Amino acid sequence: MTQVASDPTGLHRVLDEQVVLPQAAQRLDTRSDLWPDEVRIRVERLNLDAASFRQLERKHTADGTCDGGAVRAEVLEIVASRGKMQNPVTGSGGMLVGTVEEVGEASPLGLRVGDRVATLVSLSLTPLVIEDGLARWDGLSEQVPCDGYAVLFGRSIAAVIPDDLAPELSLAVMDVCGAPALTSRVVGRYDGATVAVIGAAGKSGSLSLAAARDAGAHTVVGVVPQQAEADLLTGAGLADQVVIADARDPVALRDAVTTAAGRAADVTVVCVDVPGCEGGAILATAEGGTVIFFSMATSFSAAALGAEGLAADVTMLVGNGYVPGHAAYALELLRGHEGLRSLFEGRAGR
Amino acid sequence: MTQVASDPTGLHRVLDEQVVLPQAAQRLDTRSDLWPDEVRIRVERLNLDAASFRQLERKHTADGTCDGGAVRAEVLEIVASRGKMQNPVTGSGGMLVGTVEEVGEASPLGLRVGDRVATLVSLSLTPLVIEDGLARWDGLSEQVPCDGYAVLFGRSIAAVIPDDLAPELSLAVMDVCGAPALTSRVVGRYDGATVAVIGAAGKSGSLSLAAARDAGAHTVVGVVPQQAEADLLTGAGLADQVVIADARDPVALRDAVTTAAGRAADVTVVCVDVPGCEGGAILATAEGGTVIFFSMATSFSAAALGAEGLAADVTMLVGNGYVPGHAAYALELLRGHEGLRSLFEGRAGR
Repeated sequence: MTQVASDPTGLHRVLDEQVVLPQAAQRLDTRSDLWPDEVRIRVERLNLDAASFRQLERKHTADGTCDGGAVRAEVLEIVASRGKMQNPVTGSGGMLVGTVEEVGEASPLGLRVGDRVATLVSLSLTPLVIEDGLARWDGLSEQVPCDGYAVLFGRSIAAVIPDDLAPELSLAVMDVCGAPALTSRVVGRYDGATVAVIGAAGKSGSLSLAAARDAGAHTVVGVVPQQAEADLLTGAGLADQVVIADARDPVALRDAVTTAAGRAADVTVVCVDVPGCEGGAILATAEGGTVIFFSMATSFSAAALGAEGLAADVTMLVGNGYVPGHAAYALELLRGHEGLRSLFEGRAGR
Repeated sequence: MTQVASDPTGLHRVLDEQVVLPQAAQRLDTRSDLWPDEVRIRVERLNLDAASFRQLERKHTADGTCDGGAVRAEVLEIVASRGKMQNPVTGSGGMLVGTVEEVGEASPLGLRVGDRVATLVSLSLTPLVIEDGLARWDGLSEQVPCDGYAVLFGRSIAAVIPDDLAPELSLAVMDVCGAPALTSRVVGRYDGATVAVIGAAGKSGSLSLAAARDAGAHTVVGVVPQQAEADLLTGAGLADQVVIADARDPVALRDAVTTAAGRAADVTVVCVDVPGCEGGAILATAEGGTVIFFSMATSFSAAALGAEGLAADVTMLVGNGYVPGHAAYALELLRGHEGLRSLFEGRAGR
């Protein structure tokens, strides 16, 4: 029955007239029969993207009360009509947890039937069928218990959820696992690097600190905006120096890093999700150094023009959320760094 | 008289209460006496940023006629009050051409008194004093004849205008000289790279093609949007293959590049100034390859999320307009590639 050849990006399941990638598509083909390079997952839970859920919640709130039934109905309607969970307003999706049900003979993902996995590509491009009407969900939380199935393409990413960690902990780590993997790769290119992580007490920041140390950094500096985070991070023992600075103030950030490290950073990792940190990150970085921008608040033009205006010979990377083996590496960091694990567990408990 | 120590970024000339970089400052100190690491330029011409000039022109146009005198008065007022030419609406500046008048004893820029130079950092951060009331300017063009002086900081960039090329030609090349320099550096890291340049018939695109060849690329593919540009580029002989594709269509772009080159690109250089080219550039790039984004229309989040959604292990660079020696290198490319020079001369003649 499958006549079209499959494409690793999932093009073969796009039903739109125009040829677009699955993420941009209006509607996906959700047939349960697999193309040879695909994998089918029995879904157990959807985690809606936070921005997406908030939009739905606002839309269906009247007099301060959210109509969970209406939220549920809209999610069901979106998935039924589009064949994927992509919020039409925010464009975002989320991720899912489930169990591998069938593996196509040509799948390159290395999964086996029965593996419990989390998908690390967005729901906004994942073919999805909901079979239980979301009967167990009250529509009031972004965590959606769900029975149904989803399809992964040749180029999708799914990570096996380990047995030795609480699932919530694994998911929290996997959500940001691109950051430590790329940090490790970049730090490893320098000999005894000085590394500064901006926004170091957060999820991606603390993982990046651990990754930098792990990749052979000589000095690791964590920058945070206020004392409470500084205390938290100092307690975790992930950084040689913890300093407080406003990352939007270029001179303050440069001075904080150079004073703490004794020099500018070879690698500066930006994990703080506020706009206006480009100039400071560039100034805090030594000539020949690298800035990795993981913050979605990064302005491309502010980074490009900022470096030019400062005649800064720095390499600036768009933080790619995908590096092969990123999920396993991030979980390994968590297991290996007691302080990192405590940070994550403390966050989950709040 | 100079009591504050100088800072290579020009902080010592910022007069604002809050500590900000010169580009963000409301007002700069324009004293003609130099700090030891500074250089003073006798200005001969300002080139206003195109977006800035258009804004001024629109503002002072009534009944289809632009009041050049009013444009001139506003530029004079901006420079007098701010100590720099930064359009308060667009935030942009421009560049200037002039002659080196004095070089501080600690200047690292390598300039000599009498050198005719173009500044490659924005006027929006350059201390400037206009001394002739712009009497020779009619206010109707972004090219502004001007007598006055400007100051360069330790980290500024200025390039000597060569004697053997028409000044307009040199300036056109210098305006985009970051692109070929960074392309050369990245291509040189691969062994016999396959390189695709998107928007290859433009200024930065054609220079990047020549740089890729120069840096040892095995195959160089130029992508353009339509036949006229394809003919122009084919005539210039800068690419092994010239293909027509809409860079906003990811699948079309991938297919165009892989068909022309026989494989995906190791290095993809995005020089086309339209939004929505991130996905195609990522798809056209091989695993382990690099995408260099030079277009100011690049969306940071589209690039980051696009690569993640495609599970693409590609390095994505924010095209930094500064690489040491970039202006000299770009001019060298122009001299060495007859076809490149013809493209630039043809453009100037239009």
